Amino acid sequence: MNSVNYADRICIEIKKKRSHAVIGLDPIIERIPTFILKDAEQNFGKCDAGAAAAFIAFNQLIIDAVESYVAIVKPQLAYYEVYGAAGIDAYWKTVEYAQKKGLLVIADAKRGDIDSTASAYARSFFGDTFNEWQTHKKVDSLTINPYLGSDSLEPFVEQAISKQTGLFILVKTSNPSSGDLQDVVTNTGTIAEQVAQLVHNYALRDIGKSGYSSIGAVVGATYPEEQQVFREAMPYSLFLVPGYGTQGAKGKDITNAFNEDGFGALISASRSIIFAYEKDKSETFEQVQLSIINAVNMMNADINTALKDVGKLNW
Amino acid sequence: MNSVNYADRICIEIKKKRSHAVIGLDPIIERIPTFILKDAEQNFGKCDAGAAAAFIAFNQLIIDAVESYVAIVKPQLAYYEVYGAAGIDAYWKTVEYAQKKGLLVIADAKRGDIDSTASAYARSFFGDTFNEWQTHKKVDSLTINPYLGSDSLEPFVEQAISKQTGLFILVKTSNPSSGDLQDVVTNTGTIAEQVAQLVHNYALRDIGKSGYSSIGAVVGATYPEEQQVFREAMPYSLFLVPGYGTQGAKGKDITNAFNEDGFGALISASRSIIFAYEKDKSETFEQVQLSIINAVNMMNADINTALKDVGKLNW
Repeated sequence: MNSVNYADRICIEIKKKRSHAVIGLDPIIERIPTFILKDAEQNFGKCDAGAAAAFIAFNQLIIDAVESYVAIVKPQLAYYEVYGAAGIDAYWKTVEYAQKKGLLVIADAKRGDIDSTASAYARSFFGDTFNEWQTHKKVDSLTINPYLGSDSLEPFVEQAISKQTGLFILVKTSNPSSGDLQDVVTNTGTIAEQVAQLVHNYALRDIGKSGYSSIGAVVGATYPEEQQVFREAMPYSLFLVPGYGTQGAKGKDITNAFNEDGFGALISASRSIIFAYEKDKSETFEQVQLSIINAVNMMNADINTALKDVGKLNW
Repeated sequence: MNSVNYADRICIEIKKKRSHAVIGLDPIIERIPTFILKDAEQNFGKCDAGAAAAFIAFNQLIIDAVESYVAIVKPQLAYYEVYGAAGIDAYWKTVEYAQKKGLLVIADAKRGDIDSTASAYARSFFGDTFNEWQTHKKVDSLTINPYLGSDSLEPFVEQAISKQTGLFILVKTSNPSSGDLQDVVTNTGTIAEQVAQLVHNYALRDIGKSGYSSIGAVVGATYPEEQQVFREAMPYSLFLVPGYGTQGAKGKDITNAFNEDGFGALISASRSIIFAYEKDKSETFEQVQLSIINAVNMMNADINTALKDVGKLNW
């Protein structure tokens, strides 16, 4: 289906939209606009299926609002798993809708397990061409957790490369306690730096025409001074950078995550965009969409201005 | 629903069944008995729903076979996620069936994420009493990944304690590359030992009448010499011990995971039990069940004999 390296596809879409933003589709039932919840309750009742229907309607509203302004969406699995099978159905319907609109989808799943199980997770998200029973859609890339070591990462890397999809391996996360393990100092640098070395070695195996690899890293926006260190350690990897917006980071905090060519970082925000309507007190479908569009445009402008200020804006 | 501390429930059931075994329900479509696959294909076709139907039928066969001989089953999420929403439906139907038969269910999910997302994952598996939309079942305990640090573990710990369910935090895993990060030496011991200290601190917050805590650890059977170290570091934690069977460990390799009282470790096996029928060339429903029963009985005898040999058998 995809004939282009994952990183190349990402770079093409980012240039086209002039946006480095990734919109997190992390629906929370209590924060979904009332007009959507009412419909869902009327049609399905207050149950897993009702929540799933509300999620699909809300995500479609968001995707329709942002599709011209961003290249990538990132639904986080946790928020869907809350509603069991119905929630997962909403997840895959969201993936399908976003891809139909030309958006690339990152599954934020942070999976990780021993080899045979890692392989099953990789098939779950990237599809399995050898298994004729599997019929649901595929995502374009996936976040994974390195705690189990290289033999747990290898099945993901192999499948990502063979299926021209992408990976983002957790290196340094955006949360306050990320340092508990990740910042622990060893003979050869911190744990996060050791993981960065692993990621870099994987990245070398699949570099596209854009100069970027399908094997990327998660590097939080909340630790700007460390981004430079990781940028140098993983020059070919795309960084998925969480922590912008609600978690506190701004445009000026994430410029070190970019290379001098003005690429290399995908800046992710969720709650600050998808729930922007709350602050605006928007109530109708059109008002909610407008709040989201305004929030996305402000995010794009903030990032692009910050990049321009450091001489890294490529358009 | 549960009025007893999770670890107490586990200990009661282990004594009743005289079994420390945990049966991993990790179905793989190509290895499911032909008579089940044929039925599933006839009723649903080769698709996600067909695979899900085969999983439910196979798991029910296994549960019916083992319910008198073991206390705990452990379906691994990865194998179900391969089939999307239908797979997750099979997962929860399996959980419900096992619980109806009096078995305790460990969700082997190895989830882990920043606070708000960790909280969503905890709700996914332990249910959410404040959210009237959530209608699917709850598991009895869950495996989680510590790479994101203490603020990512806290929401799981809080919910496990308040809902009288259990947690198994990855400390030392059973795979060959587990040492890449987990064995890295720091000023205060290895990374795995640092995680063990975290687990122990959480465990102290919820110790039951049995002397065990609802907050446990995953400690692989493939590193027997390390089990003693971790046993001393986490005296109140139940250990979930993977690696028995197909991964190579035997009864004599896991005795250090037990305390002197003959409790404290749950020994997990999956492929060596559920696919035992392949080696036996069993073909009918009854033959397949018999192969599974024989494999479980051999596993129980192997573990109990090994415990007896070191003076740790409690019955």
